Amino acid sequence: MYRTHDCGALRMEHVGQEVTLAGWVQATRNLGGLSFIDLRDRYGITQLSFNMEVNPELCQEARRCGREYVVRAQGIVRERTSKNPNRPTGDIEIEVKSLDILNASVVPPFTIEDDTDGGDELRMKYRYLDIRRTPVREKLIFRHKIALETRKFLSEQGFLEIETPYLIKSTPEGARDFIVPSRMNPGQWYALPQSPQTFKQILMVGGMDRYFQIVRCFRDEDLRADRQPEFTQIDCEMAFVEREDVLQTFESLMRYLFRQTLGIELPEFPRMSYDEAMASYGSDKPDLRFDMKFVALDGLRGGGFQVIDNAPFMRGIVVKGLEEKFTNKEINDLTDWVKRPQIGAKGMMYVRYSPDGVKSSILKFYSEEKLVEAGKAVGAGPGDVILILTGEKDAVLKQLGDLRLEVARRFELIPTSVFKPLWVLDFPLLEWDEESGRFFAMHHPFTSPLPQDMHKMESSDRETLSSIRAAAYDMVINGAELGGGSIRIHDRTLQEKNFELLGFSKEEAEHQFGFLMGAFEQGAPPHGGIAFGLDRVCAIMQGSTSIRDYIAFPKNNQGRDMMIDAPSEIDPKQLKELGI
Amino acid sequence: MYRTHDCGALRMEHVGQEVTLAGWVQATRNLGGLSFIDLRDRYGITQLSFNMEVNPELCQEARRCGREYVVRAQGIVRERTSKNPNRPTGDIEIEVKSLDILNASVVPPFTIEDDTDGGDELRMKYRYLDIRRTPVREKLIFRHKIALETRKFLSEQGFLEIETPYLIKSTPEGARDFIVPSRMNPGQWYALPQSPQTFKQILMVGGMDRYFQIVRCFRDEDLRADRQPEFTQIDCEMAFVEREDVLQTFESLMRYLFRQTLGIELPEFPRMSYDEAMASYGSDKPDLRFDMKFVALDGLRGGGFQVIDNAPFMRGIVVKGLEEKFTNKEINDLTDWVKRPQIGAKGMMYVRYSPDGVKSSILKFYSEEKLVEAGKAVGAGPGDVILILTGEKDAVLKQLGDLRLEVARRFELIPTSVFKPLWVLDFPLLEWDEESGRFFAMHHPFTSPLPQDMHKMESSDRETLSSIRAAAYDMVINGAELGGGSIRIHDRTLQEKNFELLGFSKEEAEHQFGFLMGAFEQGAPPHGGIAFGLDRVCAIMQGSTSIRDYIAFPKNNQGRDMMIDAPSEIDPKQLKELGI
Repeated sequence: MYRTHDCGALRMEHVGQEVTLAGWVQATRNLGGLSFIDLRDRYGITQLSFNMEVNPELCQEARRCGREYVVRAQGIVRERTSKNPNRPTGDIEIEVKSLDILNASVVPPFTIEDDTDGGDELRMKYRYLDIRRTPVREKLIFRHKIALETRKFLSEQGFLEIETPYLIKSTPEGARDFIVPSRMNPGQWYALPQSPQTFKQILMVGGMDRYFQIVRCFRDEDLRADRQPEFTQIDCEMAFVEREDVLQTFESLMRYLFRQTLGIELPEFPRMSYDEAMASYGSDKPDLRFDMKFVALDGLRGGGFQVIDNAPFMRGIVVKGLEEKFTNKEINDLTDWVKRPQIGAKGMMYVRYSPDGVKSSILKFYSEEKLVEAGKAVGAGPGDVILILTGEKDAVLKQLGDLRLEVARRFELIPTSVFKPLWVLDFPLLEWDEESGRFFAMHHPFTSPLPQDMHKMESSDRETLSSIRAAAYDMVINGAELGGGSIRIHDRTLQEKNFELLGFSKEEAEHQFGFLMGAFEQGAPPHGGIAFGLDRVCAIMQGSTSIRDYIAFPKNNQGRDMMIDAPSEIDPKQLKELGI
Repeated sequence: MYRTHDCGALRMEHVGQEVTLAGWVQATRNLGGLSFIDLRDRYGITQLSFNMEVNPELCQEARRCGREYVVRAQGIVRERTSKNPNRPTGDIEIEVKSLDILNASVVPPFTIEDDTDGGDELRMKYRYLDIRRTPVREKLIFRHKIALETRKFLSEQGFLEIETPYLIKSTPEGARDFIVPSRMNPGQWYALPQSPQTFKQILMVGGMDRYFQIVRCFRDEDLRADRQPEFTQIDCEMAFVEREDVLQTFESLMRYLFRQTLGIELPEFPRMSYDEAMASYGSDKPDLRFDMKFVALDGLRGGGFQVIDNAPFMRGIVVKGLEEKFTNKEINDLTDWVKRPQIGAKGMMYVRYSPDGVKSSILKFYSEEKLVEAGKAVGAGPGDVILILTGEKDAVLKQLGDLRLEVARRFELIPTSVFKPLWVLDFPLLEWDEESGRFFAMHHPFTSPLPQDMHKMESSDRETLSSIRAAAYDMVINGAELGGGSIRIHDRTLQEKNFELLGFSKEEAEHQFGFLMGAFEQGAPPHGGIAFGLDRVCAIMQGSTSIRDYIAFPKNNQGRDMMIDAPSEIDPKQLKELGI
């Protein structure tokens, strides 16, 4: 037997008991006549003590144990003379009677501490050492809890977890597929699913009524910092539902998860249309932990200042009470920031309502009174600053949205430990792509238009088509999209029409999605669903900025697993068998 | 709103309530002045009633609904005049006030009934219709329950579900990998995991202590009836454990699953060594629901009958009390059966202890008294039959094991609704393969030998090496292997030695598993684990013969998904992007 207790279990009530512990040597301390080992496992750290006078051999053995040695110690639980109140086991120690080194360890390439000296690459290569660190371990445990509680909640609500295949069919629509050659069907390929979308719809047609799955998805995209080629979704679908049913169900899920794992009661989820979110925050996932809604500043229009008068679009944000922080240096810095290619603004105007009068980049074009009046109209007064961008509408909204976030970050306007959830609704169904001269589905091609916009599907006018709203919704918390979904099309004719608007030929639509459209003719119920990014849910809930922390074995930006060194070259025999 | 209740919910207590139901038209009945629709969903069937006199238009509308139409009906719950005691909702019906056809249906290609007229191919192509059938639906629901209860139990026991990557590295050892070209790393490939074996061991090195995952695994093997290219494992690993700890833990899991989902208390799991299982039942997964242990029949040796005297090996089974069923026809039939190439015996001898004396194929070589005496020695007497095979040891054991099962099947000796669990222990570590002239790992290359056999690893004698027992175990119920596992090697030197015995060069071992051997030098704890086939667990528990029934979207024997028609040809652009 390797242990009677784990390293986090022993307390004063165990004093006098004979116990056996096993774990890793976190640290050793030699104080002349006494030696100590801090023994660590997943559950905690317990102090082992050795006395040079009582048992010199054993004490010598303890001193041979380096960091990360794996040992088993048998001994008696004793009350400590100098207790450690920072550790749950800090009242006791083990007076060791026998010690076995179960496995030695070379000196680890970085320290196994909360703050490690190991760089990213090194930690990824020795991920098993990184995982021994408390912050990483705790994140993996949190993810386990979220997945388990999600399953419990959804199962209680009558959802069935049903597995869908990973070896499916490639469809060129959407992101790039990972593909897998079939040895038994030479020249043919499987694809790994980007999501189980069509399968979950098929399950609704199959009468399963309420489906979920915590499932791996794959996208062969060029990777950004926070994107992985494989990632995990909480994927859900319900039959005989309208949008309201879906929103209620998954608002409850999220409220349950926050309550169960963080002890936090989320507020009601406000709702906002996509148009409103874009107009007010320049983002379809606005961060509502702070204000700074966009303001129109119409009062400045028509004053003779060409930059403003001729601007196709103008919006500003009011930064309350921070006027004195907006020094010339800060203003210049922010102006440079918005002019960076990633943001792309041509410049930034400002109006500072300072104690010694209005300071502004447009003061020579407007009277001070005019600027005070314009400020008042948008709620800006003494001590406030207005930042203004002009240009094409879509660009200004996007740029000002980015600026709003940047200002909030720079001046620490974002409260921590606060959660501001939100449903964003009524996304456009179709997005025109100038480059390819065609519409793309903003959500995906299976999304239903809102009933009241259904009639516009018959139009051939691009403006009308662009104005069709989808029965789609995103759940946003603190400016991050946790998940999104839609009511789906369940009618063959409407699905065909949608494929047609998306530029599919009849043959392409039939070849790729014929099975789904066929299913729609066999008694398909109305249905809709949602999918959440599990990694993202975990990260948002714990206020973490990186989803990679929640993945046990993440890949780097080249899609490479640094630990096992994959992908790698393959035995030519394997390729030959596949006819490649 | 589509419904206030589901189709399985309404009872006498709801009589008088106004309700809305939605579902599929299972059947319609027109009885002159009255019409009925059986409305079905996942939860049950409820009768809708329409009265021609009260509302002729509505009644006509009901009569327009074909099988599998999706409808919504609003009306009042009424007590039925003729109740249906076979249906939970059979006391009531809905007096319909309004009816909406939500979606029409073409006539389904097969009947949506418990016993369908649809063939296998048709049902796979229209899997969404097959899933509407109660037997299929109930199996998917059972699988959901087993997965959920497994997660609950293991989580309660301190196991953490940790996801491991699906895009990993190909290793030629074992079965054939499915491989995935990497676009970002031209010329390099990922492989889909055959199991998360090395990752779960890495998690143990990482201190996660208790891991599990219900996880998809992939094997590109030629498919037999009951094998799928992708299948799901309940994959588990524990640190600081000996074999006994693992056996206890997963015996508890299985006992919990049987109790929670079937209400059955499993007996204690007996244990049997691999050698004993092979010697007594000719199988490493003996079905203990019936007896017929092999008997040696040494009494017949040395009697001058060359076939027996010269046979390198001989064993028999005693079929109790069925002598009169072993007619000449039956004997000939069984003899033909064992001589089939799949079994491969040269012939079969028999001794019938019939009321009118001993009847036997070897009666001319032995006296009746000798045969009676030989029978007595192995517990065979009047009314019994002994069936005997001779030949090479391994072949006889295998053939007689098959014959034992066949006899049990033919004469219905296998009790139903009985579960006979068993641990099979002490498997050989290494299996010699004549064809390739090398050893293969019987379990996998990470399996530890038993401590008491460890010293034999240094031998270069093939017999000695073949006799090394592994710390491996299989859980067997009713003659099926539900899962298997082992205590793993956690020492670099031992792992290197094992790779050497398996014919790996130092370079090959390092290239393929260097990360794992490196991890063993960084403080690897003793560890071991097990993996269960989820589909198989479900099938065995429900006494089903096919695992395919438990998979929502199975593939056929050519690895093809008949519904979506995958694999398929791929856009040449995709291959070009991948440099293929």
